[in-house]
Amino acid sequence: MSTKIRKWLNQHKDEATDFLQKLVQEGSEQGNEFGVQQLVKKQLERLGLDVDYWIPDGDELINHRYFCATRTDFSKSPNVVGTWKGDGGGKSLVLNGHIDVVPPGDLKQWEHPPYSGYIEDGKMFGRGVTDMKGGNLALLLAIQCLKELNVSLKGDVLFHSVIEEESGGAGTLAAVLRGHTADAALVPEPTNMKIFPKQQGSIWFRLTVNGMSAHGGTRYEGVSAIEKSVHVIQAIQKLEYERNNRVEDPLYQNTPIPLPINIGKIEGGNWPSSVPDEVFIEGRIGVGPNESLESVKEEFEYAMCKIEDNWLQQHPVQVEWFGAQWLPGSIDLEHELMGILQKKYEEVVGEPAVIEASPWGTDGGLLTQVGNTPSIVFGPGVTAYAHYPNEYIELEKVFQAAEIFSLIIYEWCEGEGL
Amino acid sequence: MSTKIRKWLNQHKDEATDFLQKLVQEGSEQGNEFGVQQLVKKQLERLGLDVDYWIPDGDELINHRYFCATRTDFSKSPNVVGTWKGDGGGKSLVLNGHIDVVPPGDLKQWEHPPYSGYIEDGKMFGRGVTDMKGGNLALLLAIQCLKELNVSLKGDVLFHSVIEEESGGAGTLAAVLRGHTADAALVPEPTNMKIFPKQQGSIWFRLTVNGMSAHGGTRYEGVSAIEKSVHVIQAIQKLEYERNNRVEDPLYQNTPIPLPINIGKIEGGNWPSSVPDEVFIEGRIGVGPNESLESVKEEFEYAMCKIEDNWLQQHPVQVEWFGAQWLPGSIDLEHELMGILQKKYEEVVGEPAVIEASPWGTDGGLLTQVGNTPSIVFGPGVTAYAHYPNEYIELEKVFQAAEIFSLIIYEWCEGEGL
Repeated sequence: MSTKIRKWLNQHKDEATDFLQKLVQEGSEQGNEFGVQQLVKKQLERLGLDVDYWIPDGDELINHRYFCATRTDFSKSPNVVGTWKGDGGGKSLVLNGHIDVVPPGDLKQWEHPPYSGYIEDGKMFGRGVTDMKGGNLALLLAIQCLKELNVSLKGDVLFHSVIEEESGGAGTLAAVLRGHTADAALVPEPTNMKIFPKQQGSIWFRLTVNGMSAHGGTRYEGVSAIEKSVHVIQAIQKLEYERNNRVEDPLYQNTPIPLPINIGKIEGGNWPSSVPDEVFIEGRIGVGPNESLESVKEEFEYAMCKIEDNWLQQHPVQVEWFGAQWLPGSIDLEHELMGILQKKYEEVVGEPAVIEASPWGTDGGLLTQVGNTPSIVFGPGVTAYAHYPNEYIELEKVFQAAEIFSLIIYEWCEGEGL
Repeated sequence: MSTKIRKWLNQHKDEATDFLQKLVQEGSEQGNEFGVQQLVKKQLERLGLDVDYWIPDGDELINHRYFCATRTDFSKSPNVVGTWKGDGGGKSLVLNGHIDVVPPGDLKQWEHPPYSGYIEDGKMFGRGVTDMKGGNLALLLAIQCLKELNVSLKGDVLFHSVIEEESGGAGTLAAVLRGHTADAALVPEPTNMKIFPKQQGSIWFRLTVNGMSAHGGTRYEGVSAIEKSVHVIQAIQKLEYERNNRVEDPLYQNTPIPLPINIGKIEGGNWPSSVPDEVFIEGRIGVGPNESLESVKEEFEYAMCKIEDNWLQQHPVQVEWFGAQWLPGSIDLEHELMGILQKKYEEVVGEPAVIEASPWGTDGGLLTQVGNTPSIVFGPGVTAYAHYPNEYIELEKVFQAAEIFSLIIYEWCEGEGL
């Protein structure tokens, strides 16, 4: 069986590489996903899947408690789901990949244009190639391989090509609410081929620290919001320390800070010789796989209102939760899909898989918590370059992942014909 | 003598108030001093002074070690100096007032439009009315009073109406380099009628704190420039403490922080879930009346490179000196003009004057250090509102100051005729 799959994959590497390059060249930043979704739709139709192609309805989604987006108009941002209907009696599987990419940032830092899909030494370069069009391609290739090898399945396979993962997950939320769920899911985000049964969620916060203005020469007449921000930053560091002290999950044993609180941005004051009366701090707090967003928000807000400083007691830090959020996700380590994935990984790669908990959120959280579809995050791609210039993927890893996915689908959905 | 002066002033309050209102209504922010300087020029001509009206030559000034400005083109920003030539044999006196005002800031915070010169309960409101058109008016009124009372003087009186004090003092520098100096000077900045024989100077700094970027979820792979900035802020606080511990001047005994270091602005990072790799910090450091700018810069730079942190040792904070600077100034407490000012203050106000050191710099520093003209800062006006919304001045204080100035001129320049 695996010989046939590998042989087929070897024969289709060039074709697949071309297709991945086309996906990358359709730079699909937020609001610009239309072109790439047409390619995906056409490919799913070519493979003979039932294609559901629709515009997520922002006005409807906005009422959902886990809707989190910077927009409600998705008119140029369709979702695509292709279903390979099984013959019945088998377990179903969602294969979920987001098609949106983050902006390329400073173009000068790119050695090749970000949407070139330039290939060198077995690596393809481009924004989104590792996060996560390489993973999507591996999924599509697995489906195509089994289809062309005339495999029949008992269970259904649902391929999600969703928008908006980078901005809060509205694409997967829409797919799940539309009923595209299954018994389990694979999400091939770039884990560098590690298996992440648990995914950290995260929420963004914005803090406002107030002071009182005065002339810099008589600064003792005012209260510096920048000096007060030092207390706030230290309180955040303390909270991070306390939260991480509680983490006992062995999956985090090699992670220096399992649940980081990152302060990403600070801005305050407007004149060198005036006492600053306002500072804004933005950051993200990691949400443990078994925590709820709500409990983390509460703990954070409590820490902010307990800062030991007279001024801050009387002028409490204001906390807003804004921008993106990612639900955490977790699948039982003994879940059958975990066993299959580990077994197939070892078969294909020749060594045991590394199992860890992810340091960031994925759409796996929404699939699990809203779609009741336990999810595993596992995919090819170099994590460290995901949001940075010169993002790339090793093509050989994409084909390896495709082989593993083919074998998993065949076993989980009870394939026949090989 | 003083009776005649007071009587004259009482008769001219309405006329003077009108003129002050006109000066305020000519909002003279940087680059927009042309209109108000025409009013001043006309008034000086009307009083029979020799008027020197010129455009400071930025291309020439830029070579001076104490030139500090954000521009070199002053084509719409004339300086005006009016000289009342004495009969000879007397001491000369500079009366220095800047005509530029800082921008009004957030208009919504003003109860009346900033350039209305609205009057209520004996107060005139408006941007620049206290800093320092009220003081300028008091000087002009003193000259007019003595002129109209047919006083003759032995020494010269030089009235400076200079631009650019709020942005580094290029106007006074130009006046001084043009030869408009004297045996001593009065600078009626808003001291709330306190006498400031010593003025703090100040310099602006900009710091760049470097970190190393990473994804917020794996923030331990990066170095947060915001966390490193906490060390920088603490080092600044420590330096401020040490510098102020050394201050023994009794004029500072009632000042909580004689030589403040104000951190006015902070900005860094650009994404809540990325580790920030750069933070910019801007502020001003006070320069003691007897310190040099150079020694203060050195001490600050040394403190920045000695921060005890491995990362900052290897990636030192970058220090730039930018924007404005004000030279410190100091006059001997036993200087004859100090004695006259205190005596006349007590005569007019009926109680002893308060003598302090100023917490901010004025053009007095340039007059003293470049023009060799020892300066005293003393004027009407509510300091606390100087750069804030709803700036105002008590008109009665303006007339009181005018009376004191008349008496000082008459004595210092050896007047006759009263």
